[in-house]
Amino acid sequence: MSTSKSSHGLESNCVSPNRLLDRRTFLHGAVAGAAMLAVPRWAYAEERNLNPVWQQIEKRHDESVQRLQQWIRQPSIAAENKGVNEGCELTMQFLRDAGFGEVTKIPTDGQPGIFATLDAGAPRTLGLYFMYDVKQVDPSEWSSPPWDAALVEKPGLGKVIVGRGAVNQKGPEAAFLAALHAVRGAGSKLPVNLVLVAEGEEEIGSPHFPQIVRRPEVLAALQRCSGIFMPSAEQDLDGKVTMTLGAKGVVELELVSSGERWGRGPRKDVHSSNKARLDSPAWHLVEALATLVSSDGNDPAIEGFADKARPLSSSEKTMIADAARRLDEQVAKKQLGVEHWVHDVSWQQALELLMSRPTVNIEGLVGGYTGPGGKTILPHRAVAKIDMRLVPDMKAQEALAALKAHLAKRGFGDIEVNMTGGYDPNSTSADTALIRAQTAVYRRGGIDAIVLPRSAGSWPGYVFTGEPLHLAAGHFGLGHGSGAHAPDEYYVIESKNPQVQGIDGAVRSFVEYLYEMAAAK
Amino acid sequence: MSTSKSSHGLESNCVSPNRLLDRRTFLHGAVAGAAMLAVPRWAYAEERNLNPVWQQIEKRHDESVQRLQQWIRQPSIAAENKGVNEGCELTMQFLRDAGFGEVTKIPTDGQPGIFATLDAGAPRTLGLYFMYDVKQVDPSEWSSPPWDAALVEKPGLGKVIVGRGAVNQKGPEAAFLAALHAVRGAGSKLPVNLVLVAEGEEEIGSPHFPQIVRRPEVLAALQRCSGIFMPSAEQDLDGKVTMTLGAKGVVELELVSSGERWGRGPRKDVHSSNKARLDSPAWHLVEALATLVSSDGNDPAIEGFADKARPLSSSEKTMIADAARRLDEQVAKKQLGVEHWVHDVSWQQALELLMSRPTVNIEGLVGGYTGPGGKTILPHRAVAKIDMRLVPDMKAQEALAALKAHLAKRGFGDIEVNMTGGYDPNSTSADTALIRAQTAVYRRGGIDAIVLPRSAGSWPGYVFTGEPLHLAAGHFGLGHGSGAHAPDEYYVIESKNPQVQGIDGAVRSFVEYLYEMAAAK
Repeated sequence: MSTSKSSHGLESNCVSPNRLLDRRTFLHGAVAGAAMLAVPRWAYAEERNLNPVWQQIEKRHDESVQRLQQWIRQPSIAAENKGVNEGCELTMQFLRDAGFGEVTKIPTDGQPGIFATLDAGAPRTLGLYFMYDVKQVDPSEWSSPPWDAALVEKPGLGKVIVGRGAVNQKGPEAAFLAALHAVRGAGSKLPVNLVLVAEGEEEIGSPHFPQIVRRPEVLAALQRCSGIFMPSAEQDLDGKVTMTLGAKGVVELELVSSGERWGRGPRKDVHSSNKARLDSPAWHLVEALATLVSSDGNDPAIEGFADKARPLSSSEKTMIADAARRLDEQVAKKQLGVEHWVHDVSWQQALELLMSRPTVNIEGLVGGYTGPGGKTILPHRAVAKIDMRLVPDMKAQEALAALKAHLAKRGFGDIEVNMTGGYDPNSTSADTALIRAQTAVYRRGGIDAIVLPRSAGSWPGYVFTGEPLHLAAGHFGLGHGSGAHAPDEYYVIESKNPQVQGIDGAVRSFVEYLYEMAAAK
Repeated sequence: MSTSKSSHGLESNCVSPNRLLDRRTFLHGAVAGAAMLAVPRWAYAEERNLNPVWQQIEKRHDESVQRLQQWIRQPSIAAENKGVNEGCELTMQFLRDAGFGEVTKIPTDGQPGIFATLDAGAPRTLGLYFMYDVKQVDPSEWSSPPWDAALVEKPGLGKVIVGRGAVNQKGPEAAFLAALHAVRGAGSKLPVNLVLVAEGEEEIGSPHFPQIVRRPEVLAALQRCSGIFMPSAEQDLDGKVTMTLGAKGVVELELVSSGERWGRGPRKDVHSSNKARLDSPAWHLVEALATLVSSDGNDPAIEGFADKARPLSSSEKTMIADAARRLDEQVAKKQLGVEHWVHDVSWQQALELLMSRPTVNIEGLVGGYTGPGGKTILPHRAVAKIDMRLVPDMKAQEALAALKAHLAKRGFGDIEVNMTGGYDPNSTSADTALIRAQTAVYRRGGIDAIVLPRSAGSWPGYVFTGEPLHLAAGHFGLGHGSGAHAPDEYYVIESKNPQVQGIDGAVRSFVEYLYEMAAAK
């Protein structure tokens, strides 16, 4: 296994935080007291006479869909170093077309990023985070080829675009660009200036994203922003939205036990009869793993690992209690295929754990013979793929150091700890313009969003929320899609469900959001 | 994973016990006091005027090699159900050609076996164990195609035949058949009657071999035998021979931890962020595994597992002490790629452990994501592939029962224990005609064989040594080959090393052995 962060890494850490959990887990179920209306009322927009913009959105519908198709048809896969430069160039062209005045490619030690600005002469500036890469595909698993970007009628949903990147993240990003085209097409100026940073390595864990954001000119531009957001398709199949005020951090790593490094056991696979006289790197790994968690496998037991974990505040607990009432436990259990929460806790406690609990998880075990049946070998090497989830105020590097010290102290110092990616948790207060504007737009659209203290998944928002920027950061956007990292990824173009927005509704939500941000206190 | 014994199984349990360890591990190094002569002296044969037989062997050399080539060119792979019936028919034809009067195909619940007898009107009857199946191949790994049976000049060795089955076991078996042709060609009658049992599932752990041996007519014929042996190529690269008086037993199994069976954790892979609220079948497996051995991974800790393990007798310890003096520890360590024996024991202690110690070994670990880098999942299933080695008087079924009881008692009763194959240990006294004759033939060939109490590997000799037959059982044959279960498997046809016999020398050793057995007290 490579220790390189640029070739293999956090292959699925890196989606929008809501999508990191099966969203239906959260979102199905009774939403008490929410006045769900068939069509967003866009009252705010009417006050401002955005009707010309709405007309432009409809008029430019085909153009917007074609732009998205063109984007999807250009694969850009960092993990395979496939089409990345072409994908970067195409994204830059789309940004210029949408009105960004300065669009610069930013080299990194890995794939290039993009820094772009749009100066509308507005008092307020809004940050945007884009990714232009997508996850790998196995075309044989797709019912419609992943690079065809075909428009397909999906039963119960309507017309969707099927392709890799459809929802993660080109669809929502294309909808945002369409919003810029529509405003310009209506003869209006944007109500806010924009500062955009994009990366081409989101799907491998954003290993070089700090190299983009930490450039002086980029930092300076971001420091002018009233928060930063990633365009996203936040609606569930039923149209509901869950907002998260940050995300857990993550450290993804491999623990590698080998005879070579240990100095005990064999340096190559030998016949298993030799176990009688040889140490086993595979058993060594198992014994090391067993020290990392409680004997039921649930509670981290790495010394010092969670010392800085911040407990839930009373307001966070209130948010979760509210969410627990509105979300359906049985639906969540069914979606996950489970019968019991850990320690048999209640639904509310399960949600509290999900959001507050640092974890040590086995993603995979691989060592020796892994095919059908058996093979009588004593393997010289075994690997556990681990992820550790962090809550504020834990730090990725501190968690890694705690793990290494723990192993060394217990006689497992020979086991390699290869961090393949990860980053700190991030947190954004509900009391920020960025979040208040989201809530307002959703609410005027008839959506009483569930708000959670953080996502249990991870995204690299720490580069914005941490030192030195301290920006509010999040995801926003109406619309729906699914299948990120999976076959038949899709994004809804024309919805048959009046509570779920198609691409034009998504575009409208971005227009709304820009105006809302411009007016935010 | 299938629990079927017939499709997947002990994929490499089942070679000749010496080959189960890297033979060079044992055999390289100084052999104190052994009078190694360039050419076996065959004094015994000269007394009996076997010169006409020796002439027949030379005369029929090409015919013998062609028979072996024809045999190798017929793949017979039980694991892939490939060519098995054709391989069985061809073997039966070879047996008839070699003089067996009764050759019967024996159906089993898996692949058929063969029962054959050759009545020479002799007072004594010798048993033979053949296998007609071979291990799978990956042709891309071979320098000469595995089914070509090409004759290749191998530097330092001479002319070898390269192909799957060359040494395991068609080469030695073909040499034995050539011995029968040579005796008959010289106008002689065989000095012993023969009873042969063959199976076509040796490479998948001999799951149905008892169905062949336990048939009344087969049992009755075997009961007349003065022991049973498998033709083998027992010479090391340096010509040395190590005899083993039995073999450890083995249980090969998979431990499968799954959310479905456990009733906790997910029933499908879910996003790893859910670890905060869900139990993990992978951690459950790790915790269960950690209870099976001591904390250094070396000593079995399964309750009741080794209660019946018989310690080494003083005569067995003497054998091992002698072997420890004659075998080179440093060469063994180098061959295995190790620096330390378990618990840092001495060379003699390492050999004692190898032969006397029951073991619990991890062959493989496989669960969740096993590709490059990481993938943020909480797997619903994880598997450990385990083999347990047994010494007399342990039994395979008792070891399995002890494991299941141990897991259940410790809260891991939900973990599936799928035995994929295995059998009891076997043991044969040095003081039997079968073994004394081997020693005598080797010694007259100038070879002072190292004798070990048992092989640490396994072969299904228990069907002969156990109830009801109580036969002496072993392997015998001069000649050399290597690469069983590996690419470029070979068997020496014409040796350039005067201490290593080619096929004609192997044939002579079998003729010698038949006459020696006929005369044995």
